[in-house]
Amino acid sequence: MTENKLPIKELLSETAARTERALEEALSPERIGTSRTADAMRYSVLGGGKRIRAFLVLAFARLAGGAEETAMPFACAMECLHAYSLIHDDLPSMDNADLRRGKPSCHAAFGESAALLAGDALLTYAFELLASAPAVSAKSVREAVLILSREAGEFSGMVGGQTLDMALSVDSLSELQTLFLEKTCALRKASCLLGLYAASDTPEANLVDRAERYARALGLAFQIRDDILDATGTVEALGKPVGSDLQNDKKNALRFLSLEEAQNRVRELTAEAVDAVSGIEGGEALADLAALLAERRS
Amino acid sequence: MTENKLPIKELLSETAARTERALEEALSPERIGTSRTADAMRYSVLGGGKRIRAFLVLAFARLAGGAEETAMPFACAMECLHAYSLIHDDLPSMDNADLRRGKPSCHAAFGESAALLAGDALLTYAFELLASAPAVSAKSVREAVLILSREAGEFSGMVGGQTLDMALSVDSLSELQTLFLEKTCALRKASCLLGLYAASDTPEANLVDRAERYARALGLAFQIRDDILDATGTVEALGKPVGSDLQNDKKNALRFLSLEEAQNRVRELTAEAVDAVSGIEGGEALADLAALLAERRS
Repeated sequence: MTENKLPIKELLSETAARTERALEEALSPERIGTSRTADAMRYSVLGGGKRIRAFLVLAFARLAGGAEETAMPFACAMECLHAYSLIHDDLPSMDNADLRRGKPSCHAAFGESAALLAGDALLTYAFELLASAPAVSAKSVREAVLILSREAGEFSGMVGGQTLDMALSVDSLSELQTLFLEKTCALRKASCLLGLYAASDTPEANLVDRAERYARALGLAFQIRDDILDATGTVEALGKPVGSDLQNDKKNALRFLSLEEAQNRVRELTAEAVDAVSGIEGGEALADLAALLAERRS
Repeated sequence: MTENKLPIKELLSETAARTERALEEALSPERIGTSRTADAMRYSVLGGGKRIRAFLVLAFARLAGGAEETAMPFACAMECLHAYSLIHDDLPSMDNADLRRGKPSCHAAFGESAALLAGDALLTYAFELLASAPAVSAKSVREAVLILSREAGEFSGMVGGQTLDMALSVDSLSELQTLFLEKTCALRKASCLLGLYAASDTPEANLVDRAERYARALGLAFQIRDDILDATGTVEALGKPVGSDLQNDKKNALRFLSLEEAQNRVRELTAEAVDAVSGIEGGEALADLAALLAERRS
């Protein structure tokens, strides 16, 4: 039970529902128009997903004493950024994936040029959402833009992770971890930090440190769990072909760890994530989230 | 002669040289690493171009009483944003152009996935450059991020222009002008406004109005001049196949205007641009720039 007296699954789904409504408003025809690109943006962002990144923004904002309403534009920005990364990652020149969350990927549904533009527009719109957040100070916006641009960028950020991923080989678990840190943990780190900055333009150093440790552990655990599910899951649960990563000679933790070792590593990392948010008001929901994700089946 | 006592061509080339040095620093291995994506970023941004957008940022900053050093990170941001737009525009799923400024386009040189990522990273990095500009206030940064994200985005911005461009047909000069305004004028408008905000977080309304009028007239004139050159230029001068836009059934002003009408329109628009910056200190260089671009051969 969290401090909200709701089990984490309900807290997650209720927060996701509020985030969905905010995203529907942010991506409404009044805000982004009715072009094919706008339709592709809505198709890729709306109507599903656990909204983990938004949850992280909102939970860390609460941790730092902020209101959900104030932090919601930052949460929407993270979801738009995330959707852009998936659209471009799925393109034929990248992973060439026709399925995403059990439905046609953006380019499969709208064509390659619309998908390229929808990704570009969502990346751009993420920054517009940060800068236009009405109740957040200019200093907080500046910090948020700096954090998001760095964590999403080439140098130690998400695009850098994609760059590594396109490189020929990963030869050790340590190299794989670097890839995971940039490709998977970077946006979670940005989400946690954005939450703090939505609440305050000078968050406590202790909270920043906790946010970074939590995001790192959660992201690594999530990625290893993803690799385990990819090897053991079912196409119905995952919405994508099973074993696709191993088949395509991609970087998978199970190339370096046995299934048991991988499961142990997920448990260790989950304990690290729980520890990072222990002993602070509002930390329980984040601890429960880490535990939930460690056991997820899709 | 401008107030700097330099003819516009020299002023432009000296400003371009200073911008080039700032871009080399901003895109150095120390700042963005040495990956293939980072190499593709440097390939696409460095080593050429007139740096019109940077010039606009710096000239409008001077107009508003700002120092070039303060405004340079914003100028670099505009050049990174511009380079991203060209890289993605050239991709096979868009214009499928193998040549850019007389050399292989980014994807022709680095492959499609590296070009996609380099574009994504440059768009992201543009916002990092805005947010990390050391001598600019948080309020100015917030305004700059808002302006750039709107002018570069889907809704009435540059991506919106690309979306229109991908749509089936343009049936009138008025529709074509809408396309030009979004696709070509948006980034010029952002450049001019960013210059004002680099100098002050509350620029005079009169200057904002002048900047918007100037950018609109300059951008439209530039695009029509581009269409004229495309029909009449040579491959050596342009660095791309002559007549390619008309051959590919693209949107070209000469589909709706005779060559003479088009030339007259360029003259009218140039006069509008000159008028927008007349009677203010520092406006001469911008007036000279408009006149120079109206006569350009490449």
